[in-house]
Amino acid sequence: MEWNRKHVFDLEDFSKDEIETVLEVAKGYRESMKSAPAKTFDYLKGYTLMNMFFESSTRTRVSFELAGKRLGMHVVNFASSASSLNKSESVDDTIQTLDAMSLDAVVVRHSTIGTPQVVAANTQAAVINAGDGTHAHPTQALLDLLTMAEMGIDFPRAHVAITGDILHSRVARSDVYGLTKLGAKVTLVGPPTLLPEEFERLGVDICYDFDKIIPEVDVLYMLRIQKERMERAFFPTIGEYAKLYGLNEKRMAKAKPSVLVMHPGPVNRGVELQGAVMDGDRSFILEQVSCGLAVRMALLQLCVGGWVTR
Amino acid sequence: MEWNRKHVFDLEDFSKDEIETVLEVAKGYRESMKSAPAKTFDYLKGYTLMNMFFESSTRTRVSFELAGKRLGMHVVNFASSASSLNKSESVDDTIQTLDAMSLDAVVVRHSTIGTPQVVAANTQAAVINAGDGTHAHPTQALLDLLTMAEMGIDFPRAHVAITGDILHSRVARSDVYGLTKLGAKVTLVGPPTLLPEEFERLGVDICYDFDKIIPEVDVLYMLRIQKERMERAFFPTIGEYAKLYGLNEKRMAKAKPSVLVMHPGPVNRGVELQGAVMDGDRSFILEQVSCGLAVRMALLQLCVGGWVTR
Amino acid sequence: MEWNRKHVFDLEDFSKDEIETVLEVAKGYRESMKSAPAKTFDYLKGYTLMNMFFESSTRTRVSFELAGKRLGMHVVNFASSASSLNKSESVDDTIQTLDAMSLDAVVVRHSTIGTPQVVAANTQAAVINAGDGTHAHPTQALLDLLTMAEMGIDFPRAHVAITGDILHSRVARSDVYGLTKLGAKVTLVGPPTLLPEEFERLGVDICYDFDKIIPEVDVLYMLRIQKERMERAFFPTIGEYAKLYGLNEKRMAKAKPSVLVMHPGPVNRGVELQGAVMDGDRSFILEQVSCGLAVRMALLQLCVGGWVTR
Repeated sequence: MEWNRKHVFDLEDFSKDEIETVLEVAKGYRESMKSAPAKTFDYLKGYTLMNMFFESSTRTRVSFELAGKRLGMHVVNFASSASSLNKSESVDDTIQTLDAMSLDAVVVRHSTIGTPQVVAANTQAAVINAGDGTHAHPTQALLDLLTMAEMGIDFPRAHVAITGDILHSRVARSDVYGLTKLGAKVTLVGPPTLLPEEFERLGVDICYDFDKIIPEVDVLYMLRIQKERMERAFFPTIGEYAKLYGLNEKRMAKAKPSVLVMHPGPVNRGVELQGAVMDGDRSFILEQVSCGLAVRMALLQLCVGGWVTR
Repeated sequence: MEWNRKHVFDLEDFSKDEIETVLEVAKGYRESMKSAPAKTFDYLKGYTLMNMFFESSTRTRVSFELAGKRLGMHVVNFASSASSLNKSESVDDTIQTLDAMSLDAVVVRHSTIGTPQVVAANTQAAVINAGDGTHAHPTQALLDLLTMAEMGIDFPRAHVAITGDILHSRVARSDVYGLTKLGAKVTLVGPPTLLPEEFERLGVDICYDFDKIIPEVDVLYMLRIQKERMERAFFPTIGEYAKLYGLNEKRMAKAKPSVLVMHPGPVNRGVELQGAVMDGDRSFILEQVSCGLAVRMALLQLCVGGWVTR
Repeated sequence: MEWNRKHVFDLEDFSKDEIETVLEVAKGYRESMKSAPAKTFDYLKGYTLMNMFFESSTRTRVSFELAGKRLGMHVVNFASSASSLNKSESVDDTIQTLDAMSLDAVVVRHSTIGTPQVVAANTQAAVINAGDGTHAHPTQALLDLLTMAEMGIDFPRAHVAITGDILHSRVARSDVYGLTKLGAKVTLVGPPTLLPEEFERLGVDICYDFDKIIPEVDVLYMLRIQKERMERAFFPTIGEYAKLYGLNEKRMAKAKPSVLVMHPGPVNRGVELQGAVMDGDRSFILEQVSCGLAVRMALLQLCVGGWVTR
């Protein structure tokens, strides 16, 4: 195994080998978190990680911050509200300025698609996309894959249903690339207004009837519903959405006993996921969070450190 | 001396032995701050502390942050305004998510009583209450006790007057538990609207006449007046409050020469405390701040490290 | 070389020797940033740096934060919006409180002139002014000098034009002190409303015709225009300002081939500086940022560590 990639923009251009290398390295870090305290490394001691979050996100920012700190990095947080961007400076100029302070990794989340590429064009640091608009969220997809692998999923034999607002979901998009590259069968599920037929081009099945697909799948991956979207008539009431596409105990009864329930968080309890299912023994949502930290440590090791094993 | 407690919710259920153990350990840390730079330890190297402040507080957040860093911990700050809680996630789910990143200590401040217990139910980390509503503020009480001890107070022979808005004060409540457990006599002082008679049940005296009690006490502990409360008719004007219950030089002249003036900060100069008294040589407000850092280091050592001496 | 200064308020009272010492030490740190990762030192391990920014500034805060971390310091950030100052506590009391937690360095930015001196009167820590109102910005001036020195400027033979809103610029004021102490000739340039004749008292020339001075100078130092000021009638439209005092390619054609273009950032592209000039090969704006980090590391070493070489 070797590694030649500096930036992580999306899984679309990752090879199967690269994904498997990330998962292999991340497995080791996942293991290192099982003792208390979680193990700390000095692999990237003295390197500098900058978290640039132009959209707020506690869990993702903290995950990258801890990933960096547990590898020995200097971590600096930058949030747009506290920034000179208020003074109408361009993203390019901001990045170039920060880059001149010698950064080694930049994690960026922004509502505009393609921002990570803009950042990469203006820094010598490795750039990791922590979500750009509705486009991509590659670390989420990698952590989803790691969670499935840890829980025993054999991708070439697995069938994964991703259910919810596919249209606006950067998570769904990145998960589809990751899962199909590893050979899994993917079915996208949701109301027609949120699931255009064009998605079939990604090599997945499309299904509007959640109940029909449930018994067949190995993973029920539920997406977060953005309540704001309701007002724009993408779907009817919250109640009706939950009735048609929410995962509740009644639906769980029809699923395989070995099914994994997953969600990128934060969950709208009682909407896309009933509380009892979220807290049930088939839910691996917290394992996803742990795997997220492990995947981010792995990506920092690979993209900043440049080595797979040593 | 040994230590078997993981969480610090309030002093109500602390034994006298436990309080004395905290003070003993904290004394060492207080000493370690007297050189420049303050001494740094590696006792908790690699452990992770998360500061969760749902109410803003510079001094308390910084105190815990430095306590963690000077013990070698990774410290991550989380403030509610920057968090996913805006997206209506529950505190439970937020904590569980963060806990899945392997936390060792969580410091929490929240306006809702009982939040620290909710946090503890959802994490494997040690939880330290940094203030929950009007209920408890145990680290404030412990630092108050350490300050008194450092300044030579012999608790079984001491008489402490706590003056101000007792009704809404988590500081007063926690101080009463700490002081009475160590054998001190406590008198609560304030206007009747802010000092219900029920407080007598806590084993303290109640007094509405500040001037009468001043000559008798060893400690004049002044509480911060929340000006917002005036509008709700709990007390008359700021001026009248200061006249009846403010500590000024004239009143200081009637106090014992050895009296300690204390305040949890930040002080409303000229209201509960006249500037000249605050800056005078009987004021130990800054010593309280130093003792606060020492007490927090001690609690982290005890609750996270699990050892008293080694 | 030796060092006897604890605080950095302004360059006005710096000796030529002191400035040269800072530049000498900073040169070493600038060199240490040229490998990847930038070199980290343990010179100030265990010392505590507090960043107190009462005005927001990403680049300056991050620069000091990284300077501290790369010297091994504990760094704590404090921003006014998150602070108890909202509860109307005075700056004095806030500093005294934080000082009681044993700080070694305080970096302060505030809109009120003289705040760094107020801070220094209330702490035992070394205080570094990161900008006070329109008064002074000494670390900016020192990084400007380092940039010029690194780029081969021989100060006694150099002529520097500083162009823009001189009246309101703490950068211009500090640069004038630094440059004249090192023997450089300085010409201030701008519209009469923004460039009162009194500035001549500082030992500089004054010029209202930008085009006339361009061919003569070795450094074209452009100041940021605060668009808000336009409304107060200090100057006409943005377009007219750019036409008279903006640095564009046409003007660059008249400058010495060796001229350095500098700017404290963030730049209003197309106003004081045309994009092509900013991105051109005579622009040293990013070098300024790198030198800024080096100068801040040098000042922390000198003022906190107290030594020049060892």
